[in-house]
Amino acid sequence: MGRCPAAGAGAKMSAAAVPELKRISRVEAMRLGPGWSHSCHAMLYAANPGQLFGRIPMRFSVLMQMRFDGLLGFPGGFVDRRFWSLEDGLNRVLGLGLGCLRLTEADYLSSHLTEGPHRVVAHLYARQLTLEQLHAVEISAVHSRDHGLEVGPPPGPRAPPPAPGFGSGPAEGTDGYWDLSVSLCTPRRTESGFPNFLSNAFISTAKYQLLFALKVLNMMPEEKLAEALAAATEKQKKALEKLLPSSS
Amino acid sequence: MGRCPAAGAGAKMSAAAVPELKRISRVEAMRLGPGWSHSCHAMLYAANPGQLFGRIPMRFSVLMQMRFDGLLGFPGGFVDRRFWSLEDGLNRVLGLGLGCLRLTEADYLSSHLTEGPHRVVAHLYARQLTLEQLHAVEISAVHSRDHGLEVGPPPGPRAPPPAPGFGSGPAEGTDGYWDLSVSLCTPRRTESGFPNFLSNAFISTAKYQLLFALKVLNMMPEEKLAEALAAATEKQKKALEKLLPSSS
Repeated sequence: MGRCPAAGAGAKMSAAAVPELKRISRVEAMRLGPGWSHSCHAMLYAANPGQLFGRIPMRFSVLMQMRFDGLLGFPGGFVDRRFWSLEDGLNRVLGLGLGCLRLTEADYLSSHLTEGPHRVVAHLYARQLTLEQLHAVEISAVHSRDHGLEVGPPPGPRAPPPAPGFGSGPAEGTDGYWDLSVSLCTPRRTESGFPNFLSNAFISTAKYQLLFALKVLNMMPEEKLAEALAAATEKQKKALEKLLPSSS
Repeated sequence: MGRCPAAGAGAKMSAAAVPELKRISRVEAMRLGPGWSHSCHAMLYAANPGQLFGRIPMRFSVLMQMRFDGLLGFPGGFVDRRFWSLEDGLNRVLGLGLGCLRLTEADYLSSHLTEGPHRVVAHLYARQLTLEQLHAVEISAVHSRDHGLEVGPPPGPRAPPPAPGFGSGPAEGTDGYWDLSVSLCTPRRTESGFPNFLSNAFISTAKYQLLFALKVLNMMPEEKLAEALAAATEKQKKALEKLLPSSS
């Protein structure tokens, strides 16, 4: 398994080598002290019956966002627990960008302690939609972004600013959200498609959360995830060797 | 300038170290033989007066797409010159995904010979829109994607399939297009924002075209582009070192 990527400090390796952050229960997360920040993000997805080029199954579409800071992540953000429950806070942030969709405790999937200098616990919610609903969410995201530019942030208590180097961006406005739905297809060989997608620049927590959710929701077998991740790492290595010929 | 990334074979280094593919004139490109494939892509952009967190200027928004193969690129695709002029072919591909927008020869920006085993000349068109127009294009892209899933590809002659490992994907349908507009802001330091965005996985031609266009359209000074590219390479290196601890 030498080719499989290892996770950073604090991460655990499962048998099939999909790295994972330290997972804690919701109850444990709720007991963390006031020094901890809570982030809540939503994975909205849909089974996709489409076929690329009429022959490659698309399997699932997952809504992710190109964030204000140039990294890929899930819609969501920090929730100030002095003012909001996790779900109310998440819905408030999503409401800025994703229209009338409302998540509940039934959509709760996991809590993970994140890496880095800041004490952040990352909660993930997941809801399966129809493909039409997923597209409607995307469209309302673009509409509300457009609207947001004209009217500015909505009234009400502000969420705290994201900690440096982490977080899902502006709860202060919607300008920072760019939505894309990503299909989990792998055209041609294991070397392209999903592995290419994984070789993009993610906010690291979101990448771990994506892999975790795809695994526990049985959207992709763990071996396939590990293979895709190893192929993505190989791609990143090759791309970098091209950029830095002196290090090869 | 040792930290600045070098381009691959066939690329030239300019004084400020923004790598560039071999540029040829439109006339030269039109004289290339039938063994050459022609790709046409559009950079649609808008000045963005918004401010991230109310203080960081967004400068410009540029429409790019997360493609069917997990890589970022511009909207567009291959044009079969037996059937179409460059512009008609481009508009046909854009029409599948971007609504009623039509580009003309006046929007032509450049032709570059691409790297790789296939003989491909990449034509780039650029048009500045208002931010509202850019958002309207994004919205129609999501709508037509939704529509495309139900009705399949439109009638008429098919564009040739993309060459392996290159191209901007399906002219055969719209399922493969995911649009995102990216703002050229650099929050906090030179280490984040645009450099983060550049550290994503691009179809390589698109990355060169983006840098070229930002330079010649005076959207970003060449020194800033070179700085951002160097910072992006540094980010990719650090991310890879984390994934491959054995190589550090």
